Formats: sequence, C-alpha cells, structure tokens
Amino acid sequence: MIVLQLIGIGTGNPAHLTGEAIAALNAADLILVPRKENAPDLADLREAICAAVLTRPVPIIAFDMPVRAGEDYVQAVHAWHDAIAGAWRAAAATHLPRGGKVALLVWGDPSLYDSTLRIAARLPDVSVRMVPGITSVQALTAAHAIPLNPLAGAVTITTGRLLRSHGWPPEADTVVVMLDGGCAFETLDPVGITIWWGAYLGMPQQALDQGPLAEAGPRIAATRAALRARQGWIMDIYLLRKAPQ
Amino acid sequence: MIVLQLIGIGTGNPAHLTGEAIAALNAADLILVPRKENAPDLADLREAICAAVLTRPVPIIAFDMPVRAGEDYVQAVHAWHDAIAGAWRAAAATHLPRGGKVALLVWGDPSLYDSTLRIAARLPDVSVRMVPGITSVQALTAAHAIPLNPLAGAVTITTGRLLRSHGWPPEADTVVVMLDGGCAFETLDPVGITIWWGAYLGMPQQALDQGPLAEAGPRIAATRAALRARQGWIMDIYLLRKAPQ
Repeated sequence: MIVLQLIGIGTGNPAHLTGEAIAALNAADLILVPRKENAPDLADLREAICAAVLTRPVPIIAFDMPVRAGEDYVQAVHAWHDAIAGAWRAAAATHLPRGGKVALLVWGDPSLYDSTLRIAARLPDVSVRMVPGITSVQALTAAHAIPLNPLAGAVTITTGRLLRSHGWPPEADTVVVMLDGGCAFETLDPVGITIWWGAYLGMPQQALDQGPLAEAGPRIAATRAALRARQGWIMDIYLLRKAPQ
Repeated sequence: MIVLQLIGIGTGNPAHLTGEAIAALNAADLILVPRKENAPDLADLREAICAAVLTRPVPIIAFDMPVRAGEDYVQAVHAWHDAIAGAWRAAAATHLPRGGKVALLVWGDPSLYDSTLRIAARLPDVSVRMVPGITSVQALTAAHAIPLNPLAGAVTITTGRLLRSHGWPPEADTVVVMLDGGCAFETLDPVGITIWWGAYLGMPQQALDQGPLAEAGPRIAATRAALRARQGWIMDIYLLRKAPQ
C-alpha cells in the first residue's frame, strides 16, 4: 500500500513551509523529486528545502519529468499526466516494494493549478493526503501588502490562456492571473485597471512592479523578458483590479 | 515608529503556521490579541498558538474588540474599522511608547476576507508587513483532497452575501463561498451542482460533508444549525462546482 503525500511547499522560500509540511516530510519513507530540463534550479531548491527541514534520513529520489507534447492542449495534458503517474509508480515499485509513504513537494498549494492530485487519481491503489502550502497568490499579496479581495467583493483566479481567449471575466473587479506564459494583460483595454505583478516570489531574485496597467504593463513586459533571458525561466503572477465605475 | 506585522496563522491548527510566521512572532515586541464576546475560544486559541511557538518571552496583550453596529453594511464596517484602529493605537501607545514591532495573529491569510490590512491603513504612521498563512479555502480542499480549479479553468471566490444577491457568478464553474452567515447555497437551483463543505477546518471539531447540492444541501443546513447551537459559533466555507454542460 502506497500513501502519497502531496505537500505544499510555498513558492521557493523555505520559511513558507508549515509545521504540518515539515512533519509530513520527516514522516515519509521516500521523497520523490522531479528533474526538469528547463528548470534545473527548482530540483536543486526542492533538495535544499529537504536538507533544511529533515531531521532524519529520508531517501530522496530524483526522477526525470516526462515532457508535455502534442497539438491539442487538453489531450496533451492528459497524456503527460499518464506518463508522470507511470514514473511515480515505477519509482515506488523500485524503492518501496513493500509499500510506504511517498512524499512529493508541490510548488505552492496542491489544490491550485497543480496537477499532482489529478495525476494521483490515475493510481487507484494509492491513498492520497494533501498538506496545504502558501500559494503564489498569497506571496504576491503579501509582497505588495495588498488585500486580495475588494471590501465585501469577489475575486476571480484564472489563467493567462483564459484571459486571452475570454477577456475580462464578466462582473469581476479583481482578477488574479496565473500560468501566463506571456503577457496576456496586453490583450486588455488598460483604462481603469491597476496591476500588481511579481516574479520568483519568495526567492532571492524576487521582482515586483505595480501601477496603472497603461503605464506599468509595457514596463512589466520588458522586465519579464529580460529576467527570463537572464534566468532561463520565469514564474510570475499578477493581480488586476478595476476601479469602481 | 510602529511596525505592524499581520501574521497569517491558518485556520486553528497550530501546525498551519509557517516558519516565517513563527519567526515573526518571536521577533515581535508585543503581540495584540483581540477578545470577542461571541467567540471566546478564538482568543484562547491564539494564546495557545503563541504558547506553542514562542521561544522567548513576548508580551501578549488582549484588547476588547469593538462591536460592529449600524444599518448600512459598508458604513458600519468603516466605523468598526476606525474603532479597531483606535484600539490598536491605544494599546501600542500604552505598551510600546517608544515604538517597536507589534504582531497581530490573523485568521487564515491577511489578504483574504480579513480587515486587518484595511484597518492598518487608518494608521498612516505605521509601517505594515504581511506574512502569508493557510486560508480556509486551502484547508477545505486539503481536507476533501480535491483541486480548487477545474483543469485549465477559473475559480471565483465570493461571499454568502454576494451569492444571495447576485446569484451564480456568470461563466463560473467553480465558486468558493466564504463569510456566509447562513446557507446562501439554498438560494441556487441545485441541478448539476456539487458541494464540498467544511466547518472548524483544521480544528479538533472539524466537520466535513459533500455531495450533489440537492441532497447534501439540506443535510449541511441541518448539521450547521446543530453545530452552531452546540459550539455557540461556527466558521464554515464551501466549494460549489457545476458539472460541464
């Protein structure tokens, strides 16, 4: 029997880990760390976090992360998730043949724009436990010291893809955009919109900017391109707020 | 000079605290704890959390939380926030006449449906720092082991008041409802909607339920009333998901 623990680790600051996350890592029989070609820093960071919080020797096994491929987005994601589930199963069979607790360090929180829960659902003989972690949404609002929701108002959390294809969500006044491979905010009419942006949140190279979208948008697009070129990868997020009409 | 640290503590489970939150509490010169007549357990819980994580003697001062009053919701909230800011200022003047770091333990995360940031904005001579914490949204999804967002989809976080007055948010398929003093889900046509509900999340008396809204809704309403009567107060949250049409 395999128990799979999906442990939210926050956004790269080891101080984001909760007591529950640290206890779960120490209780694991095996920690699985994905190795991605395009983001080697993240595997190193996961190993650094383990080194910082483990108080007993838990085996840490790296596995090569399958690559997503295919034209159709949803279909490609499903095939990719199948391949990752296969990699987990293989690692567990090799290193825990008699079963045990496998821990996965999940960026942010395992519930928000993360695939580990859907991948785990492909392993019906595995029992899943989730440990919440600080999301980049929270790291963004904390870094800017701003509220997420307007007073007595609602918040929409969406993706760059949806913002680009569907435009501003109807009736929304606060929109948080995640998983934006580009600058989907450029597709909006900027009038009356303020942006709060952050990249590498919680990490030493954290970058922040904010202001009226008409002025801050082009500045952020330029900063983003420069940072991406320098680091080789970027993870960013932004909050857009419309002034009350 | 007063530095006000708004420290997210999660939803009542001391293991929700992050390393950053624990460090900020220990670095404080004064911890302010609100005392509320209708929720005495919460002041006790805050003091228990301090006792569990403090490694040096930080003075903990309780202050009587002003009560919200008035007909107009937004106006009443503004007056209430003014009164709370006054209480903080008075406590800081008494206990830290030469300035220092004041810590406030904020339920969940200081950015999400919490007023401390807006109250702090009433004190222009105070510098504010935010430390993220686990929200009840995350405690809910972790307890049910469900994703927050549908695959490649968006999420709306709203209030019971808005769900009641505006109905189901347009184009949304996942809606999280917070601050619902009643059961606003009863105002929806339940066809095609699934609910995941949780109360006292992360606390020993945690209660969970889920299912098709038509069946689970009345059951949750009854459970909620019974729990509220037994405990004297309730804090709950729920996630509603519409099946793809």
